[in-house]
Amino acid sequence: MARVHNFSAGPAALPRCVLREAQDALLDYAGTGMSVLEMSHRSEAYRAIIEDAEATLRRLLDIPSSYRVLFLQGGATLQFSGIPLNLMRRGRAGYVVSGNFARLAWQEARRYGNAEVLASSEATGFDRIPGLDAVERRAAAGDLDYLYICQNNTIFGTQFRTLPDCADTPLVADVSSCFLSGPLDIERYGLLFAGAQKNAGPAGVTVVIVREDLIADGPARADICPTYLDMRVQAEKGSMYNTPNTFGIYLCGKVFRWIEQTDGLIAMAQRNRAKADLLYRTIDESGLFQGTADVESRSLCNVTFRTCDAETDEAFVSHARERGIEGIKGHRMAGGLRASIYNAVSMDSVSALAACMREFELSRGARSM
Amino acid sequence: MARVHNFSAGPAALPRCVLREAQDALLDYAGTGMSVLEMSHRSEAYRAIIEDAEATLRRLLDIPSSYRVLFLQGGATLQFSGIPLNLMRRGRAGYVVSGNFARLAWQEARRYGNAEVLASSEATGFDRIPGLDAVERRAAAGDLDYLYICQNNTIFGTQFRTLPDCADTPLVADVSSCFLSGPLDIERYGLLFAGAQKNAGPAGVTVVIVREDLIADGPARADICPTYLDMRVQAEKGSMYNTPNTFGIYLCGKVFRWIEQTDGLIAMAQRNRAKADLLYRTIDESGLFQGTADVESRSLCNVTFRTCDAETDEAFVSHARERGIEGIKGHRMAGGLRASIYNAVSMDSVSALAACMREFELSRGARSM
Repeated sequence: MARVHNFSAGPAALPRCVLREAQDALLDYAGTGMSVLEMSHRSEAYRAIIEDAEATLRRLLDIPSSYRVLFLQGGATLQFSGIPLNLMRRGRAGYVVSGNFARLAWQEARRYGNAEVLASSEATGFDRIPGLDAVERRAAAGDLDYLYICQNNTIFGTQFRTLPDCADTPLVADVSSCFLSGPLDIERYGLLFAGAQKNAGPAGVTVVIVREDLIADGPARADICPTYLDMRVQAEKGSMYNTPNTFGIYLCGKVFRWIEQTDGLIAMAQRNRAKADLLYRTIDESGLFQGTADVESRSLCNVTFRTCDAETDEAFVSHARERGIEGIKGHRMAGGLRASIYNAVSMDSVSALAACMREFELSRGARSM
Repeated sequence: MARVHNFSAGPAALPRCVLREAQDALLDYAGTGMSVLEMSHRSEAYRAIIEDAEATLRRLLDIPSSYRVLFLQGGATLQFSGIPLNLMRRGRAGYVVSGNFARLAWQEARRYGNAEVLASSEATGFDRIPGLDAVERRAAAGDLDYLYICQNNTIFGTQFRTLPDCADTPLVADVSSCFLSGPLDIERYGLLFAGAQKNAGPAGVTVVIVREDLIADGPARADICPTYLDMRVQAEKGSMYNTPNTFGIYLCGKVFRWIEQTDGLIAMAQRNRAKADLLYRTIDESGLFQGTADVESRSLCNVTFRTCDAETDEAFVSHARERGIEGIKGHRMAGGLRASIYNAVSMDSVSALAACMREFELSRGARSM
């Protein structure tokens, strides 16, 4: 079948050239006579793969040498536990609850210490990034082990436009759905982490970037922290305390290279901005479609919107599918519609969706106005 | 390059027909217009994949409906923590320490309760499965939450020939390196688990098969158990509490189908027995090579052996490599040589290795006799 326009929230579209390269590596990796899937993680050939993935990521994001890069398993979700187990040394952390995954992270942290909600937008259905004044004041007090945010909220289509000023409190950020969509100032963070299955690769790899001093003494809760989640151990072992997701890391490395070869993260951010602008403009000019996120909090990665009612939303999903557009049903928690426009989603795909929206609106004109 | 004979201990050889099928799915899965890597784990197409993987595994192993099958991440290692966190309800479990991974599992369990070593072969360098009389007496006493074994010891080349009689104490077994090498009597176990990267698929998937009543009340240590490791939650969510390793599970399903299409586990066990017999016969008839495991404990999956000294071991590794034979260096803990002869390693490959051993011995004849 012809390649569809894939707006899935993750696992999501991957660059076609990366998929083609992976195809070749699936039977014979670089003349080794075996598949990249069959190679010992201790082999020289594989060591070169994981080292290149890390080196490329370091170049892309300009990661200082004082930060460690880990390639782990278990998704961002497992790090919801790993973060407090490693970092909650004084037993107190602050959470900004801006969506479902931030809430889950907060609930997980409550098992291991005093996890305070410093700001929340739950009351307005997570339609915005909450105000951060109180958060910043609390961070400045200096008694928190870390301040936690989810930088882009995949389900609700909101995104931090600026990072909170944390003074000396380490900022911990789940960047899963905005990772590598543009440059990041790594030194603003104590720890940032991302499930790869949005912009960085396939499902099954979690990238953790952590300031070394935060993990140098081992986990805060060494008494109960599973060794797999011990970030010092994983850093010392080069993410190979046990067998890593070898193929997943291979593929992430290829995606990192692709970003580099397509002019890096500044160019990527410009393309992503243009894609988001087109969709939001289409929504704002429409008499049928409306955005669901507060305008000031709109995400550049996940565009959430809806029509007049659930039935029409569903009709639009079918209409789009008939035109080769997939993955635009909203998350079951939010309803409505969502287009995830990650790096590998081309402007062509976004234009096709925008045209499809206008066409659908015209076809429904009389009823919806 | 021509396909090598791959004796890697894991990640390891995969069936060539499975790799070819995966190649096709990498650009367009079954006419969906997207890669299997790009599909939402919530999509209908992916649901069919994970359901087929589980159903095929259930047929292969004749898994009773009272057992749940989970596809998780983090390797067997993460389950070293997950098992005590879920099952140590009375705070007491027994461990048979027959190798490095059994020891690691025991060390991990000690964080969460009283983990007793009931038998160990550490004193003899893990060259055998320890005697089980005391273990069985202790299990019969009925005060253990579970009895833990590592059924096949990848590094030291030993394997349980019979399972201990545990009376009513649930048997928990790490079967990573013997999983799907032959039939298993699932009802002998309370829980069994395996890293997939030996016989079942790629690195990055852990298969857990657990008797439902053992997890029905939630984790023993619900106060500190990361939700990711909560087996009741993972069972309720069909291994999708969060995004699973979608491609890894897809590939496992293809391997399960391959086993079924090549006449199932009884036939597989016969082929594996013939492969192991050939290698052990070659070793036993040799004046240069010698087996390192006690004869009664020899593994049918990982054949460990050595020559007269480390230098000659190394020379043999080079000699073999020149003949397209890879992955036969012993684990750094055990030294010497090792041939992992998992399902996808053909009798042709094993014959090539045996011939290579005889040839090497002849070439060294005068010196080694």
